[in-house]
Amino acid sequence: MDTPPHPSGRPRRPRVVVVGAGFGGIRVALALDDADCDVILVDRTNHHLFQPLLYQIATAALSPADIATPIRTVFRHQKNVQVILGEVTEVQPGRKRILMGNDAVAYDWLVLAAGATHAYFGNDQWEEHAPGLKTIDDALEIRRRVLMAFEEAELEADPEARRAKLTFVVVGAGPTGVEMAGALREIAAQTIPADFRRVDTTTARIILMEGADRVLPAMSPESSEEAWAALRRMGVEVRLNTFVTGIEEHLVKVGEGDDEEYVDAGNVIWAAGVEGSPVARSLEAELDSAGRVKVGPDCAVPGHPEIFVIGDLAAATSADSEEAVPGVAQGAMQMGEFVGGVIARELTTGIEPELRPEFSYRDKGSLATIGRARAVADIWGTSFHGFFAWLLWSLVHVLFLIGFRNKILVMVHWAWQWLVQARGARLITGRKLPRVKRPVDLGRLEDEGDALA
Amino acid sequence: MDTPPHPSGRPRRPRVVVVGAGFGGIRVALALDDADCDVILVDRTNHHLFQPLLYQIATAALSPADIATPIRTVFRHQKNVQVILGEVTEVQPGRKRILMGNDAVAYDWLVLAAGATHAYFGNDQWEEHAPGLKTIDDALEIRRRVLMAFEEAELEADPEARRAKLTFVVVGAGPTGVEMAGALREIAAQTIPADFRRVDTTTARIILMEGADRVLPAMSPESSEEAWAALRRMGVEVRLNTFVTGIEEHLVKVGEGDDEEYVDAGNVIWAAGVEGSPVARSLEAELDSAGRVKVGPDCAVPGHPEIFVIGDLAAATSADSEEAVPGVAQGAMQMGEFVGGVIARELTTGIEPELRPEFSYRDKGSLATIGRARAVADIWGTSFHGFFAWLLWSLVHVLFLIGFRNKILVMVHWAWQWLVQARGARLITGRKLPRVKRPVDLGRLEDEGDALA
Repeated sequence: MDTPPHPSGRPRRPRVVVVGAGFGGIRVALALDDADCDVILVDRTNHHLFQPLLYQIATAALSPADIATPIRTVFRHQKNVQVILGEVTEVQPGRKRILMGNDAVAYDWLVLAAGATHAYFGNDQWEEHAPGLKTIDDALEIRRRVLMAFEEAELEADPEARRAKLTFVVVGAGPTGVEMAGALREIAAQTIPADFRRVDTTTARIILMEGADRVLPAMSPESSEEAWAALRRMGVEVRLNTFVTGIEEHLVKVGEGDDEEYVDAGNVIWAAGVEGSPVARSLEAELDSAGRVKVGPDCAVPGHPEIFVIGDLAAATSADSEEAVPGVAQGAMQMGEFVGGVIARELTTGIEPELRPEFSYRDKGSLATIGRARAVADIWGTSFHGFFAWLLWSLVHVLFLIGFRNKILVMVHWAWQWLVQARGARLITGRKLPRVKRPVDLGRLEDEGDALA
Repeated sequence: MDTPPHPSGRPRRPRVVVVGAGFGGIRVALALDDADCDVILVDRTNHHLFQPLLYQIATAALSPADIATPIRTVFRHQKNVQVILGEVTEVQPGRKRILMGNDAVAYDWLVLAAGATHAYFGNDQWEEHAPGLKTIDDALEIRRRVLMAFEEAELEADPEARRAKLTFVVVGAGPTGVEMAGALREIAAQTIPADFRRVDTTTARIILMEGADRVLPAMSPESSEEAWAALRRMGVEVRLNTFVTGIEEHLVKVGEGDDEEYVDAGNVIWAAGVEGSPVARSLEAELDSAGRVKVGPDCAVPGHPEIFVIGDLAAATSADSEEAVPGVAQGAMQMGEFVGGVIARELTTGIEPELRPEFSYRDKGSLATIGRARAVADIWGTSFHGFFAWLLWSLVHVLFLIGFRNKILVMVHWAWQWLVQARGARLITGRKLPRVKRPVDLGRLEDEGDALA
């Protein structure tokens, strides 16, 4: 690629700008370790997040630092990487630069790995009452709401209101929804009953709603069946073929017209739709219905061989299977390595973009955990479940966590949690005040013996 | 004590209301384990916090869950304790009840252990620019500000503004101030220099300001001297006999009139004055200048033998030494055990309050840590410092942490941190956006080679 000399006379090194330090973006930058280029890695946060374990923050099993590593630390020894904390607001393909508010950063190559965010099918007003789970702040907010629900139920005098506070609806039965529902049921039924005096937390209802006719629709029917049965055995209410049509404070509406139904629920957690990061819209490329960029077989934007889109933001097709690359960590990592390799090769050899290889996705299997020592696996061409699947799940997740320290700590947490069924991160933080609306009448001395007995 | 029968005919059990689940309040409730009474333990948060290690959250060494335990978990097996999440707004001694907003809770005995909060000597407007360190939310906010300062400095083009962003002022050289200053200097000089490409974090200035003529004024002169020397060796600027007279955004004013001086500082941390929780004002008892309740030798409010005040909220005098009981964890714990014992005894035996013993404080020694493997100790009638003092400090703090799980994790964290000088919890969380005001001109392609080199 032709790079003009720097005004100082010193030739400028080609610059690769990577937007997003998730599984995809990190892999691109790592793959450029030996390449003669400058890598600018931009992210809205200062940490690389191991998103598959985010539900464990939301359910108080792990602390944020256990599953997040400062991006700068990852690239501490890779001196051609510069990390910038900032939010990319626009891509200007014609001027070959990105904008972060008023600041512009030019690129020779651009890799967009900005990921996806939760989407409410056009009902953004649902978000306030049904938070999604994409960032650490999301997870801490859900943790706060879940723990507060039990605290509020403890003080609630009215039986109906108490029942509503102890009703949790999880919308969407993908891996996150299934894992959330299972963990919530474990909290209510096993972790905290002995902690409360007035309320019986084992009566908490966890309702998992899914539009499809099975849970974990992306996994094998055997795994769906097994996960469904395991959730039911734990006491989770699973409602399939169920469409949420409205969410208000403490209320979920299901179905329409004659089938309309209302569920009083103090907490709703959104684990359903996602859509591509809005920054993709400025690319002037074709997007699919979920806001993802339709990329060519080389993961580049058609007509722009210097712009790649990878990970959850890409609508890509695997070259060999001709199937869509799924929006999972594996897909992002493989695309990231592929694109990093393509750029490194073209930088070194000057090979023309026309001669690029095509990306093929290799499915290494899927795993989802349902609760303590239970999981389902589709791997090595077969499906299995139970303790061994869970052990495999634990092993895979720990191995993939970046950073040696985190691995040890997460293992200690898990081992401890598994042994005593505790959840050590049960902290209500954040400055919001308790939302107890109808607290129990703690009343006057003479009639108090019963009220607080 | 005379307790009227419950309207239902069943005799009501005497009720002890404890406000605050810090070191003092927890000990009161634990001491009433075998007593035939109901204990209502009210706290604004759901966790008991090991406050002496809070600075380690603020400096990214530990996660909140490492030093906090859900209060309910502490009393899981003590069935006469009921935990209520709520904020006590008023005490009504005449009606023997406390108010939490519109809710009243009656008591037979009341123990106020609501602690202290940071005070700005009547300059509440300083708080916004100089946060204190009393709660987990405080610590996370300080962590966010400190880490953001380096991120902003990395993008700052103007040398003067960059220098200001890398200037941290810690006001107050008690244990918290000394520990904060030492940890900040370690972060800047050892933990993160390799993570940044443009800014040299080792140039960060940490200025510790103290009004007295020595650091750690509550410790022995030998320890003060040693801590001062250790801080200086680390590169902390220690300014004694220095009075802060104004704080604005990014600006600290020192002295008055001819001695007036201004320090540009991107971050100011307040570790100076504290004052008693405002709830004490409703007691109609005598307060000292720091808003603490002057209690009798039995830790009770004069004229109200059924109301005790303990911990940081009490201005108490030790019966044997006739010296003031210091506002430290030991003092709160000893008062809590004493008061719990008094109540248990009077409940069981009906002994009159006139025959109560007097509280004597036993100083078990003081420890303060200055940095990695450095500490000072005043203990066993002598002063010493260095690695052994630090080992003792670590041991004491780990032993006192409530909850076995936390101890293991904290030890792993510390061992790891000590070995590799990492700080694992370096996460910027919280929804506030970066406050970069004059970001570097990331500019156009042609003049970019240098700007980001």
